[in-house]
Amino acid sequence: MAVDNELSNYLIAPDPSAARLTRAVEGVDHTGQATNISVVEERPLTIFLNGQEIVTAMTIGDYPQYLALGFLRNQGMLRDGEAVTGVDYDDDLETVVVRTDSQTTYEEKLKKKTRTSGCAVGTVFGDMMEGLEDVTLPPLQVKTSDLYTLAARINRTPSLYLEAGAIHGTVLCQGDKPLVYMEDVGRHNAVDKIAGWMFSERTDPSDKLLYTTGRLTSEMVIKTALMGIPALASRSGFTAWGVEIAREVGLTLIGRMRGKRFVCLSGEERLLRDADPDQMAEEDSKHGRKGAKE
Amino acid sequence: MAVDNELSNYLIAPDPSAARLTRAVEGVDHTGQATNISVVEERPLTIFLNGQEIVTAMTIGDYPQYLALGFLRNQGMLRDGEAVTGVDYDDDLETVVVRTDSQTTYEEKLKKKTRTSGCAVGTVFGDMMEGLEDVTLPPLQVKTSDLYTLAARINRTPSLYLEAGAIHGTVLCQGDKPLVYMEDVGRHNAVDKIAGWMFSERTDPSDKLLYTTGRLTSEMVIKTALMGIPALASRSGFTAWGVEIAREVGLTLIGRMRGKRFVCLSGEERLLRDADPDQMAEEDSKHGRKGAKE
Repeated sequence: MAVDNELSNYLIAPDPSAARLTRAVEGVDHTGQATNISVVEERPLTIFLNGQEIVTAMTIGDYPQYLALGFLRNQGMLRDGEAVTGVDYDDDLETVVVRTDSQTTYEEKLKKKTRTSGCAVGTVFGDMMEGLEDVTLPPLQVKTSDLYTLAARINRTPSLYLEAGAIHGTVLCQGDKPLVYMEDVGRHNAVDKIAGWMFSERTDPSDKLLYTTGRLTSEMVIKTALMGIPALASRSGFTAWGVEIAREVGLTLIGRMRGKRFVCLSGEERLLRDADPDQMAEEDSKHGRKGAKE
Repeated sequence: MAVDNELSNYLIAPDPSAARLTRAVEGVDHTGQATNISVVEERPLTIFLNGQEIVTAMTIGDYPQYLALGFLRNQGMLRDGEAVTGVDYDDDLETVVVRTDSQTTYEEKLKKKTRTSGCAVGTVFGDMMEGLEDVTLPPLQVKTSDLYTLAARINRTPSLYLEAGAIHGTVLCQGDKPLVYMEDVGRHNAVDKIAGWMFSERTDPSDKLLYTTGRLTSEMVIKTALMGIPALASRSGFTAWGVEIAREVGLTLIGRMRGKRFVCLSGEERLLRDADPDQMAEEDSKHGRKGAKE
């Protein structure tokens, strides 16, 4: 079956049937009838770097090691080639301890906090733009046929979103293939889990594209660029500063991608328009997620 | 006109035409045509409490004083009845300094960081649940007719969301009247701006309802409870822990509110079902925002 073949390309796909990730919650609907709803979990996970407590994340709880590694990586607390000597997850204590064999700069980072513009009280440590001036993204050609194929495959992939909603997804892609599909209650966590996976696998970012269900804010653009990924696409909208940063670092930025429609905000010269949009169906409402303006 | 009358009830309504809040961004659409898109801004705002730098928020930039006051209030850094001697906003420096005449506990708070489950790297200072054990919310009766009227009025209100998208809205309501409608790139900011307004105006929270476009995560439920507001409604979905906390503190929690549909997750006994859902139209797609599962 086509879908099975598509799913077999994933290195990591969502597991909507995993027992720990959702729970049935009782409610009463608009007609007064009792109803049982599958709802995503939200758990604390405290991340330590060596002996130092760094942060407590609220997460659905899968891939805690990747989340910890990716968080530290995206905050600049783990550098390229830094030797990680252990990543210990304790389920009972809800902690992950990342151990390295070198001194890190985290104490300095902790002094400076920036609250970012996602849907929570957001903080990144250190200067958000730090390291960005050194970023030169490779000029990846992005085929519009791949964009359409990716969106269709990702929308058809069984996910916690389709099962329970109230969750964001981020997918690491190569060509027309979605490779690693992470979901979390916060999209920052989903991106960090991908960063942690890439750090662990020493994945080459230069031929990858990141697809996200969330908005393209400055934070998402900065994270993608710092991860070395040259293209970022989303079903959702974007902010003016997100677009500005993408142009500065040479990131190909595509927003409001729904059915045959999309808008390219940055890097248009790297798009290869090899698909005829009129051959693409308008999006099936069954697979619709957020509105294009979200 | 009906809409004008409705809008005249607002104490604060969105101002989608405000020049500083949106910007025209050029892009290229799926057909290769250049297109101009109205996009929300995202600016840094650094909040100080007396001499101490607390956080830098990414915000659309309206109501910086309310954002600063509400942020400090919702973090427990400003207590009930604490005398605020000044709130100074500097447009050029992008700072707000909140001055009080007493010592505060912020230094202790800064030691403990919790990353919440919104759409950004989320951090709240201090223990997120702190103060929650003392919360006893008043048993406000919520009429379903008011819920339907509120949703219809809020959806018809001209907003930055309708103008540019990629933004969250939170509305303080009383009975069937939306009173204060705040929008921001992060829903935490929109809620904090409402908290800052309430703190400034010494508003009684006991007969209010908070309506939000975003998901009902633990963070949203905790903030609403700490603000003393006994009811919280949303178009969007919810997390298991959000529901659990609402039940513990006696908050009436309503999710997935679209057209005639909604689900009451907590406080069902305080709902007065005085509207016939079958008399309500299914939602007009023009006013649709996120899907009910978001």
